This record gives sequence, C-alpha cells and structure tokens, in this order.
Amino acid sequence: MSQSQQINRPASSTDVAPTPQNTPLDTTVLSNRPANLGRPQVEDIGENEEEDGAEEDVSGVNPASLLAKNPALLALAQAKFDELIGRSSGYIESLPASVRRRIDGLKGVQVEHSKIESEFQLAILDLEKKFLEKYTPLYDRRLAIITGKVEPTDEEVEAGKKSDEDSEDEDEEEEGAKIENLDEDGKKAEGDENVQGVPEFWLTALKNHVPISETITDRDEEVLKVLLDVRLSYLSDEKSNGQPGFKIHFTFGPNDFFSDTELTKTYYYQEKVGYGGDFVYDKAIGYDIKWKEDKDLTKKVEIKKQRNKSTGRTRVVRKVVPTDSFFNFFKPPQPPTPETLESEDVDEDELEELDARLETDYQLGEEFKEKIIPRAIDYFTGKALRYEEDYEDEDLEEFDEDDEDDDE
Amino acid sequence: MSQSQQINRPASSTDVAPTPQNTPLDTTVLSNRPANLGRPQVEDIGENEEEDGAEEDVSGVNPASLLAKNPALLALAQAKFDELIGRSSGYIESLPASVRRRIDGLKGVQVEHSKIESEFQLAILDLEKKFLEKYTPLYDRRLAIITGKVEPTDEEVEAGKKSDEDSEDEDEEEEGAKIENLDEDGKKAEGDENVQGVPEFWLTALKNHVPISETITDRDEEVLKVLLDVRLSYLSDEKSNGQPGFKIHFTFGPNDFFSDTELTKTYYYQEKVGYGGDFVYDKAIGYDIKWKEDKDLTKKVEIKKQRNKSTGRTRVVRKVVPTDSFFNFFKPPQPPTPETLESEDVDEDELEELDARLETDYQLGEEFKEKIIPRAIDYFTGKALRYEEDYEDEDLEEFDEDDEDDDE
Repeated sequence: MSQSQQINRPASSTDVAPTPQNTPLDTTVLSNRPANLGRPQVEDIGENEEEDGAEEDVSGVNPASLLAKNPALLALAQAKFDELIGRSSGYIESLPASVRRRIDGLKGVQVEHSKIESEFQLAILDLEKKFLEKYTPLYDRRLAIITGKVEPTDEEVEAGKKSDEDSEDEDEEEEGAKIENLDEDGKKAEGDENVQGVPEFWLTALKNHVPISETITDRDEEVLKVLLDVRLSYLSDEKSNGQPGFKIHFTFGPNDFFSDTELTKTYYYQEKVGYGGDFVYDKAIGYDIKWKEDKDLTKKVEIKKQRNKSTGRTRVVRKVVPTDSFFNFFKPPQPPTPETLESEDVDEDELEELDARLETDYQLGEEFKEKIIPRAIDYFTGKALRYEEDYEDEDLEEFDEDDEDDDE
Repeated sequence: MSQSQQINRPASSTDVAPTPQNTPLDTTVLSNRPANLGRPQVEDIGENEEEDGAEEDVSGVNPASLLAKNPALLALAQAKFDELIGRSSGYIESLPASVRRRIDGLKGVQVEHSKIESEFQLAILDLEKKFLEKYTPLYDRRLAIITGKVEPTDEEVEAGKKSDEDSEDEDEEEEGAKIENLDEDGKKAEGDENVQGVPEFWLTALKNHVPISETITDRDEEVLKVLLDVRLSYLSDEKSNGQPGFKIHFTFGPNDFFSDTELTKTYYYQEKVGYGGDFVYDKAIGYDIKWKEDKDLTKKVEIKKQRNKSTGRTRVVRKVVPTDSFFNFFKPPQPPTPETLESEDVDEDELEELDARLETDYQLGEEFKEKIIPRAIDYFTGKALRYEEDYEDEDLEEFDEDDEDDDE
C-alpha cells in the first residue's frame, strides 16, 4: 500500500490530449462483456477526494462524473433516493439500543465475511495464473503459425473448419465441408505464393476490436503490421514488491519507427482489496518507446503562419504537439496524488476528465487481457464481434453474419 | 443438454403480466456491479431463432431488442460496421490459400483454447462451492442474531463498529468511537425492550436494493416481514442430472399468507458452455406457493360493473387477474421451445418481451447470489448502495453519505 501511493505521480494531462480516440470508449460494450472473471474495480477518484483522501475506503463505484451536476436528474433521483434511504436511516435510528447492538454485531460478522472474500479473490488470481500456464503452449503455437515458423497440422486445420461449421446451420454442414475441401486443394499452390505465416495478423485483429480500432491511425498501421505477438504475464511478488497486477507484452518485428522489440504496459492492483473483495486498480505504467528520429507517432508537427501586426511580415512556426495514436496506450494517465485531491484549487473538470481517461485506460487493459489475447483469431476473422455486446444495435449482427457467409 | 431442452415449457406470458415491477430492471446498475465472478451469460432468444433453432450456437449476446428495428440507428451503425467488417471480410478472401489454411489452423488451436477455458469455468465453480462452505458458519451466525437466538459477542460488536469507522474520516475516528460507546451503555436497557433479534431484517435489506424494492408491494411487505433467511446452494450432480446451477432458499416464519416455510428458486446453466467458456443460463424453476385462501399476493380481484345493453341491467363481475408482486419471482418466465421459435406465426414483439423478462429474472437471481446473500447487512444499513453503480446520477451517493452521518 505504502509503495503504491508513493509511486503515484501527478496527472500529466498535457502529455496526452483527451481526444475522441482515447476517451470515449464505449462503456456499454465493455461493461457487458461476458467473461468478467476476476475483473478488478476502477477506483473512483472523486470518492477519495470527498473523503479527504482517506485511502482506506476504496470502492468500485464507476466514476466519470462524480463532480458533474445535473439539476433535473438530481431532482428526479433525489425523490427516489429519499424514499429508499429515508427508510433505512429513520428505521435504524428508531430501533432500541439492543437491536442496534445486534446490527453492529452483524457488521462484525460481515468483517469476517470480507476476509474470506479476499481469500476468494486471491484464489481466483492463483487459478488464473495456473491456467495461463496451460494456455501458453497454445499461444506459442499461434505465434509460430502467424510468423510462418511452422505450418498448422492437418488435424488443426480440420478442427478449425469443424468449429466454423458448428456455428452454422446444421443442415448445410456437409455442403460446407465440401466447399472447404476445395480450399484444401488450393494449399498445394503454397510454395509458389511465398507468403510467410499470416501477415498483419495482429493489426487485423486489433482493427476488428471497436474501441481499440478507434485509437489506430493510418500512421500507426505501418508499425502495427509488424506486431508479432501480444502476451499476458502476472506480476510476480518479487518484481512488484508484492503488489498484484499484470503486464501486457507487445512484440514487434524490425520497423522504421522505433528500435524496441517489446513494448509493455503494466497494470497494478491496490494491495488492499475493495468492497466485496475485488481487486481495485492502482495505476498503470507504460513504456518509454525509443522512437527513431522524427518518427514519434504520438506527436505531430504543426506548422502555423504567424503575421506580425506591426511589421506585416509572416513567419512560419513549427510546433510539436501531441496527437492521436494507438501508441498513447504506452503513456497512460496517472492517478492524481492525495495531495492534488486535497488541495483547494483542484480543477474539478480536469479531475473528472482524468477520471474518465483512467477508466478507459484500465478498460483497454482488460480488453487485451480478457478478450484479445485469449481469442485473437476470433477478432482476426470477426467472429468475436458476434459475441460482443451490440454495437448500438443488434442489426449489426446481421451484417456480421452476412460477412461470415462471404468468407466461405 | 437433452434433458434441459425437454424441460423447457412454452412461455406462459399470460401468467405474469409484464409490468413496470417485473420488467425494467435497471441494467446499468446490474451490468456494472463489481463482483462478476462466474457470472453466466444470458442466452439470446433472438439469435437462436435467426439460426433456425440451432442449439449449438449459444452466445452471451445481450438480447432484449434483437428484433427491433431503428432505421436511423441502423444507418449510423451500418456505416461503421461496414468499415470494420468490410476489412476483415475482404481481407481474408484476398489471402492466398496457404494463408487461409493457416487461419483454419489457428481456429483449430482456438478450439483447444476453448476447452481449457471451460475447464477454467468449472474450476471457478468448484472454488465457489468450496468458499460457500467457508461462508456458511457466518450465515448461520447471521441467522441466529437476526432471529434473536443469540446475542452478538462484544468482539463482534467492536469489529462492526470499527469497520464503520474505517470508512469514515480518520481524523474523527476517536471521537466517533466515543459517541458509539455511549450507545453501548444503552444496551443495559435491553431486557426491558423485549425485542427479539433484528425485526424485519430481510425486508429492510431487500427494500434497499433498488431493482428488488421495485417489485415489493405494500401487500408483499406483510409477509416479507417474516422472511427469516435467504441462502444459496449449488446444484449437486445427482439432483440436477448433472446440469450445473444454483438454488436460492427463502425461509419464512409463520404467516397468514402461505403455509410454506421455504420457497425456492432454481437457476440452471446449460451443460454446454458458451463462447469464452462461460456458463449460459438455461432456465429458472420457481416454486408453487401454497397460498392460503384468498391470500395469493400475485393475484387480485377486479370488480367490474357490466351493463347488459338489451335489458339495461347491470351486474357485478368478479375477475381474478395477475398483479404485481415480489412473489412473481417464484413464477419465472419460461424460455420458448425451439418449436415455438421455428414456427412461422411466432409474434416477434411477444418474443422480444419474453426475452427481456427472462433476462431480468436471471439478473435478479444473480443479485441475490452475488450481492444480497453475501452482504445482507450492508443492504440493511444502506452501506451497499455506496458501492452500487450510480442510480441515474452520482449525486445519489451524497445523499447516501448524508444518511450515513445521520446514523451515528
């Protein structure tokens, strides 16, 4: 706990301008995704602030707009809440001391319950780690196929085709199999084609993930074409000083933009679990990319003509400014320090915006951990989109299905 | 699988009229709750239907509006989706056969991954069962305190008070403790008060859970006052023919409304797990409450005057109709049969409405399992509301905190 709080740096909101690319992740999509196991909570900045930085009270309340006021909504909500809370409040006060003592006793029993809930979360984390080991040979195999180091076996190909058929109308199964078999013959032309592995596998997969695709610019695509692997690891107790968390590893082939072969993004959970025993995010640490000269995709040069009013002469001003890029993912926003939150002149709008950016950043990390790494091929083919929460409308699914038909 | 499909009964939508009480559960609240462990998915009726009842393809896509059309949204969504899916689709087609073979191979690798994901879900379920045993002594203790069989120990009371203080401003901690100690003295008047346990504990807790409170009518409250316990059990392999799931047990004291002492609600998962390995709900089975005469809270008598046009005489008609009640929870909607879905004259609006009611029912089950049973005292005091997703607005949290202050 002590360490995590010290590492917190002040928010550097000038680094990464809030843009449509990095801010408005579709939370409907994210919040409803199916596999929610062990999902940590996002701590609410605003709540800490209201409680004078009391670090004990970490909660999983969705933040974003704690400081916003909406008088109309407020009035509506107040009426409803008064009714609800009014009951509880007045009710407890009206109870005899003996009953209030029992209520305190029940709270004491709940303290024991919370301890077991924390144990449960740790047991889940252990289970996740154990299963990551089981998945690893499959991720190795995926990497080898994608990079062309090995060809899939006939058994793998058959199993893959069969899994497609299983999702289709059973009546057409046999016919489907026949059509696919024609493809199989095509495989003999393999040598001629001289294509290694599956080019642009990860770029294609990421572009099929809606919130992430929105962060990918045309300039980013050039580098993401040589993104070779994305992996997950859990923080070991030694390396993170006992703080739990996970790390996402991005492996790149040689490229014109940076000299790194691996970029990482590390998410730390708070050591003290939140309400219900869930992990709460503490912070994310990015990676200082070694950009080649003038190749930093997170910056652009603005050229402005300035006219001197007195002389009437214009001059050209070059200014390097932050710009939208997938690679801003490696410069995550930093949670505000308790000092910032306690200070009188904290800008509430800025805080709120930072809050939203933090949540988006944590959510993107979750998406990599829970969905993209485990099922990259399904993003590559678009199949995963069928299982996403509706993007605006279920009609999309129909397009998706049309698409699936086209693929065959 | 076979059994689960046979048990499915046709939707009896006349039984339980869709009302504001049982339909519009606030899904924002539900979908964002912190503890999402092992949360099963809700199968989408519409999807099954579109695929001609292909039972294999179960998915966790949020249903509700699969059949609704909204041309404006559709146009917007289409543009975006075309862009996304267009890429994947055209891209795969354009690839040489050798690459397409590798893609099939990667799908085959994914099949192995899915098998391990299912293993993981089963391991989580085992862990949940193991931990339920650890929680059980605490639930026994809770029951004993609520019903007045035992008094909490001083240690429990102290631990309970301390847990309150921990959530408060640390500066005021000592003062708070002193104020609480005054209450302690009040405890000596205990014998005089003659109050057993904590009356109306569960009614109060349920009324502090917004979606559930909306199902509780004034008439329901009379019975819910003697709701003594709510417990969870997991289906054992023998009893459910191997189908996984869980059961919620409601224990009632003697009352004027029904002769049962325990009502149950059972949720079954499908044996075949969904995409990502998650369990998918199959169905819920309620309980046939033995209502005392004229005491069925789920029905009301409508009295209408009918005027005979030819004779001019009026007569009084008594009609028993379904009505809003918490106890409709024990008459859950039943998923449509594959035959219903395949039939030509299925009413899509009815299907959509049934879909929404099923989802609400599954979500209420989740709420009992994941939140109310584990943390009933926090609903009783209102503390749990601080950790709920905002009800409409975060301003509510401020009221909640005001309330907490009042309690001291």
